[in-house]
Amino acid sequence: MDDHNSPIMLAFSGGLDTSMCVPWLAERHQRPVVTVTVNTGGLTEEDARNLETKSRQLGASEHLLIEAREDFFNEVIRFLVFGNVRRGQLYPLCVGAERGIQASRLAQAAQQFGSTTVAHGCTAAGNDQVRFEVALKTLDPSLEILAPVRDESFVRAEQVKFLETRNMPVPSKSSAYSINRGLWGVTIGGTETLDSKGSIPEDAWVLSAGAFDANPAPRRLAIGFEQGVAVSLDGEPLAPVALIERLEAIGAEYAIGRGIHLGDTILGTKGRVAFEAPAAELLIAAHRELEKLVLSPLQMRVKDQVAAIYGDLIHEGKQLDLACRDIEALLLSSQRRVTGEAHLLLRPGAAFVEGVTSAYSLLKATRGVYGESAGEWTPADALGYSRVLSLPGILQTRAGKPQA
Amino acid sequence: MDDHNSPIMLAFSGGLDTSMCVPWLAERHQRPVVTVTVNTGGLTEEDARNLETKSRQLGASEHLLIEAREDFFNEVIRFLVFGNVRRGQLYPLCVGAERGIQASRLAQAAQQFGSTTVAHGCTAAGNDQVRFEVALKTLDPSLEILAPVRDESFVRAEQVKFLETRNMPVPSKSSAYSINRGLWGVTIGGTETLDSKGSIPEDAWVLSAGAFDANPAPRRLAIGFEQGVAVSLDGEPLAPVALIERLEAIGAEYAIGRGIHLGDTILGTKGRVAFEAPAAELLIAAHRELEKLVLSPLQMRVKDQVAAIYGDLIHEGKQLDLACRDIEALLLSSQRRVTGEAHLLLRPGAAFVEGVTSAYSLLKATRGVYGESAGEWTPADALGYSRVLSLPGILQTRAGKPQA
Amino acid sequence: MDDHNSPIMLAFSGGLDTSMCVPWLAERHQRPVVTVTVNTGGLTEEDARNLETKSRQLGASEHLLIEAREDFFNEVIRFLVFGNVRRGQLYPLCVGAERGIQASRLAQAAQQFGSTTVAHGCTAAGNDQVRFEVALKTLDPSLEILAPVRDESFVRAEQVKFLETRNMPVPSKSSAYSINRGLWGVTIGGTETLDSKGSIPEDAWVLSAGAFDANPAPRRLAIGFEQGVAVSLDGEPLAPVALIERLEAIGAEYAIGRGIHLGDTILGTKGRVAFEAPAAELLIAAHRELEKLVLSPLQMRVKDQVAAIYGDLIHEGKQLDLACRDIEALLLSSQRRVTGEAHLLLRPGAAFVEGVTSAYSLLKATRGVYGESAGEWTPADALGYSRVLSLPGILQTRAGKPQA
Amino acid sequence: MDDHNSPIMLAFSGGLDTSMCVPWLAERHQRPVVTVTVNTGGLTEEDARNLETKSRQLGASEHLLIEAREDFFNEVIRFLVFGNVRRGQLYPLCVGAERGIQASRLAQAAQQFGSTTVAHGCTAAGNDQVRFEVALKTLDPSLEILAPVRDESFVRAEQVKFLETRNMPVPSKSSAYSINRGLWGVTIGGTETLDSKGSIPEDAWVLSAGAFDANPAPRRLAIGFEQGVAVSLDGEPLAPVALIERLEAIGAEYAIGRGIHLGDTILGTKGRVAFEAPAAELLIAAHRELEKLVLSPLQMRVKDQVAAIYGDLIHEGKQLDLACRDIEALLLSSQRRVTGEAHLLLRPGAAFVEGVTSAYSLLKATRGVYGESAGEWTPADALGYSRVLSLPGILQTRAGKPQA
Repeated sequence: MDDHNSPIMLAFSGGLDTSMCVPWLAERHQRPVVTVTVNTGGLTEEDARNLETKSRQLGASEHLLIEAREDFFNEVIRFLVFGNVRRGQLYPLCVGAERGIQASRLAQAAQQFGSTTVAHGCTAAGNDQVRFEVALKTLDPSLEILAPVRDESFVRAEQVKFLETRNMPVPSKSSAYSINRGLWGVTIGGTETLDSKGSIPEDAWVLSAGAFDANPAPRRLAIGFEQGVAVSLDGEPLAPVALIERLEAIGAEYAIGRGIHLGDTILGTKGRVAFEAPAAELLIAAHRELEKLVLSPLQMRVKDQVAAIYGDLIHEGKQLDLACRDIEALLLSSQRRVTGEAHLLLRPGAAFVEGVTSAYSLLKATRGVYGESAGEWTPADALGYSRVLSLPGILQTRAGKPQA
Repeated sequence: MDDHNSPIMLAFSGGLDTSMCVPWLAERHQRPVVTVTVNTGGLTEEDARNLETKSRQLGASEHLLIEAREDFFNEVIRFLVFGNVRRGQLYPLCVGAERGIQASRLAQAAQQFGSTTVAHGCTAAGNDQVRFEVALKTLDPSLEILAPVRDESFVRAEQVKFLETRNMPVPSKSSAYSINRGLWGVTIGGTETLDSKGSIPEDAWVLSAGAFDANPAPRRLAIGFEQGVAVSLDGEPLAPVALIERLEAIGAEYAIGRGIHLGDTILGTKGRVAFEAPAAELLIAAHRELEKLVLSPLQMRVKDQVAAIYGDLIHEGKQLDLACRDIEALLLSSQRRVTGEAHLLLRPGAAFVEGVTSAYSLLKATRGVYGESAGEWTPADALGYSRVLSLPGILQTRAGKPQA
Repeated sequence: MDDHNSPIMLAFSGGLDTSMCVPWLAERHQRPVVTVTVNTGGLTEEDARNLETKSRQLGASEHLLIEAREDFFNEVIRFLVFGNVRRGQLYPLCVGAERGIQASRLAQAAQQFGSTTVAHGCTAAGNDQVRFEVALKTLDPSLEILAPVRDESFVRAEQVKFLETRNMPVPSKSSAYSINRGLWGVTIGGTETLDSKGSIPEDAWVLSAGAFDANPAPRRLAIGFEQGVAVSLDGEPLAPVALIERLEAIGAEYAIGRGIHLGDTILGTKGRVAFEAPAAELLIAAHRELEKLVLSPLQMRVKDQVAAIYGDLIHEGKQLDLACRDIEALLLSSQRRVTGEAHLLLRPGAAFVEGVTSAYSLLKATRGVYGESAGEWTPADALGYSRVLSLPGILQTRAGKPQA
Repeated sequence: MDDHNSPIMLAFSGGLDTSMCVPWLAERHQRPVVTVTVNTGGLTEEDARNLETKSRQLGASEHLLIEAREDFFNEVIRFLVFGNVRRGQLYPLCVGAERGIQASRLAQAAQQFGSTTVAHGCTAAGNDQVRFEVALKTLDPSLEILAPVRDESFVRAEQVKFLETRNMPVPSKSSAYSINRGLWGVTIGGTETLDSKGSIPEDAWVLSAGAFDANPAPRRLAIGFEQGVAVSLDGEPLAPVALIERLEAIGAEYAIGRGIHLGDTILGTKGRVAFEAPAAELLIAAHRELEKLVLSPLQMRVKDQVAAIYGDLIHEGKQLDLACRDIEALLLSSQRRVTGEAHLLLRPGAAFVEGVTSAYSLLKATRGVYGESAGEWTPADALGYSRVLSLPGILQTRAGKPQA
């Protein structure tokens, strides 16, 4: 199956797992290895330069940095906001949602390099192996997928030794925690999250450590939306990615969007992770309240049902299933009037949506229909309404005393 | 239809609407009026004494105070917690949920007094007229229901004058806001909530005004659950009603559970109200996280679907429809293992669930299944799992290039 | 409110109720009455001529016949097929679904005539009053709607006498049953359907009386679909309306699509009606089976959920709520691959879908993935899949024996 | 892991796969093999005797026949009827639903024999391997499960040769089709069902071949229910299993309940199978119509949602997940008033539900509430109801013309 002329395309994060994969794949398969980093957020320019250097030191034949934040917003985050998606009423899918985008860009890169072999560094314990493989196989069923860390069951000490033996850089274990960062938030796993009892210590938070001690003064914030998409902060127009990054900075100062997610892995086990999602928290809260002003109750009920399913599918790596396209069509249709502004008050630990305004306000429309001289609706109408709404109860009670 | 020997049973809150109803009903119908106050929370002993005095002054033939907090918990609140019910991801049905209980006790009181006529003071604009009438008609289809404030379209000035003319006490308008208080929280409507733009001022909050200025130190709190029901605070066993009242006091100190609810009335219009629900906020957050530790993903998915419907039905006053009994059976079944403890950290404005523990922990069970010598699940299994999960995507892609 | 120069626009079926409304409205309101018949199916050319004559005899100032079958298909029926909608697993919304279209054309006609007054002949007992009024008020909140038969509580004898006194034609009671016919089927109510015990007699069926005695030979039928829309019968291309009418004729010969619908009215009561829907039965069965060949399991699960809601909303006359537009967007998206052919075998009383074919067949795609030399999926994969799928059960069982 | 003193407990059907497993397991593992046949329907006394003989000839140390039809009804079928469960609006889960019961009895038998090793003869291509393994692991996570036919990838010729070499009986290939029969119906796979185009030939139907040629006269049938459970046929009380077997015989004479199921396997592929389910067809149709007479619209809506999930879970072998217990609690609660009788008319190819009767009839209760002197509901009430129901549409239209 191996074609020795084409490279193995490796999804590359620069951590120990993917670092070790570069020389291991090259040696085992005797093929060039191209490292591919897909930026779906959380990567500084310095990070990017370091990844390139590291890739070269590890012996990769080439390193690709693919910018995909805007695509990530358009293809996934946008719909998560439209659907106000939080798993378990809490967790805004900080990480995981980007795997489909990363897989898609990796498959495209393989095609450009004339390769049909891709590789990832996921382990056998987690969600990402499944997300990557389901997405890659859907994108191109003929792809060969290598997953040495999982399939060879490497343990940390072996990996370190493997790199040291070759005089290659060993990524330092900078933290006791495993950190995952992207445009939609940060997850932090390790130590306390292996158990269910407690939270991580204050200094383990990545974006907001010390925020409560800093105790910033309360601050108001206005987020403007057009058809469900946030387009401005305090009146200043911003493109989606810039807006999210700005919101993350502001929210992190207030430790907004912290949580501990106790969730179900795709494998059916339980897992636990701390997360910081200031931008997701602010955007979803703002969007959700604006929707309440402009959508009919039926629209919200229908949306809520399919959005819950959508969140599950994204979490489970099924975002390429056409069912997601169908749901997105519904969500998109629902956003036509979600244009207006949400007003938030930020305090340490929480954002409070103080109000929302829209030219499509149904609350304003409500004020016109009652109590005016030519109102559409009178006390007698309300009485009739109550009486008719009572019919099912009356029937139920009467039928409940059965007669022969 | 009027039976002049039997009294009219009036649901009585002591506000202007129900106060005015006492003499008006007595005069118009020439029948004795019995005032009935059903305590579903938020009533002090002084409040109770005042209501009795007021009732007498208004000419009621008798006043009944019916204690129903425990029933309210058992028949409704318990299931709202089991279902983690919040409308629009926010509002824990602070008020409205108690109307069914109140209607039920009013109908029972009517039966005790040999009466088939009941009355309420609701207006034509709101939810409560519908909730009362649907519940009352379901409880007893033969009841006659009087609603003079709605059906005669009284305005405030007329009501005041009506009482003044008779030298009867006029309830003072103590606040610019209309306040509704019960065991599950407080709602506050008026001025700012008539529009969608802003929040109410700090001093308009009923339970927690000034909490942020008081700035209490962070505090930890442990809530113990047995089969989904909260049974202890910091290890101290408490009966449900006492526990909720204690939680309300603690949470209010931290301004926890504040929000602005922009919702859909039963009539189909939009309405807006501020609310304070410290106990609901703390209990639902704690319960929800404990559930994540002990319920299977399928159990949660099923529960979430029917709980959303349950919340709608309770909101709409349909809690006597047998569909609610069916849903309650499911919710009850789901709570068998929801036994354990949730650990919360309270800071001004927000509660943070730091961890949960349970003898039924699925996270603990997870730790036993991977990576051990006789683990149930190997890297090869994970590979097989991913491959099989990829099949729908592979089929979809292959079938997407149709051939004749 | 009445503007004496503009006419009252009356939805006109030619039955006793709407016939009587013509002179009654003209006399009571002293305004011209324009009769409006919107053809949503089931109207022969002779019927159309008779309606015009009748309208003139009843004193209408003008009669409009508005052809709307194609619109009815495009705006409603199409989506009912996309969603395979049957209430209670049985009833394909034979009637009711067209009320929104009829209301819309009536409102348009009013605008053309410079009128803001419309009228219908529905009674207080049924669904159609609600459907008409909700649709009309949504289309134009400023419309005045008259419903004399409901609001004046006329009984049959009064209506007959009213017309006889004026020497106007009294619609003959041709049948003991009340019959409603449209493009999507026929409903038949009366006598036996007032109770729940039995069916109507054989000769009361409108389309298929005597079909079992005629005992036609079994017949095969192929229905071709493009993106969910039926486009051909036995290979002959047909436009949607013609195709439905052809299918009705064929299916009726076999008494296909008969049923008795015991349903819930919009008012909350129970009602019962016999129906004949040969075209709906054949189209939905064919479409549903074709979908199973080309849609992913997730697509079907999502579709089924929103389609059930869609059917409820259409039944309840809420088809102008934007929630229906949102659902239609999802349904439309789901039909992209629903192209192919369904093969049916018709026998008296039942259609049997023998098979389906499509260029997008997922069954054909399935055959390629297992057992071949380079199969995507091996016994070891299947074992791994089963093992991982067992994890939730293993955890559940282990956690079920709690330890301190 | 093998304990040579304890036997391997093999689920045994007598087909080629499980026959070959007996000597293969005995030889490979050098342990006694106990064959276990769990009767969940479709087994004659002769079949039972033949299985015992065959087991002995194949060298089993012992043969167990476990009667489980009544358990199958109580633990599964009952709830499938309560939920009116049909996959894809068609297929009543004829086979598959019994795997959980069979796994449970197999695990119990293992315990009785002091064994922790069980075996089944499923292949890698189908659903049953997953259903068995998920159920067995949930029942007892410590069980070792052997699946030689899957894990050794035996093909038919090898299996035949393996048995011939040992002079053991080779199950004759009596049919071109693979037939699966149980209490809830029969499935028939092979030849035509490998493709999607056509049906199986008339003589391949197992229960009803030739029924249309026999052309039995139409026949009426009354099925009596108590709390959702069928308890009588034409007035004759029958226990559930006997009643189902009787219904199967009657329905098969009319070829009722035939279909072709194009479905999704647990593995995510598509599969196709013909089925005959006369008893399921008759019971579900009868039960569903009776429910419409006695359940509130809300009860049905809620039931339908969870029943669809329940069907999926049973199909996927997840019936031991506690989520199923939760759903069963809801379904059980919903059946309290489902007591009465359904009247069916059987003709070749179809059953027609002519009517239903119940002491809890909501249709009868409906007749009392309208049009009587003291009716609960007047034309004015209906007008008020329509007006209030129009409010969301009015608001939507007004708000749709946004102003600054």
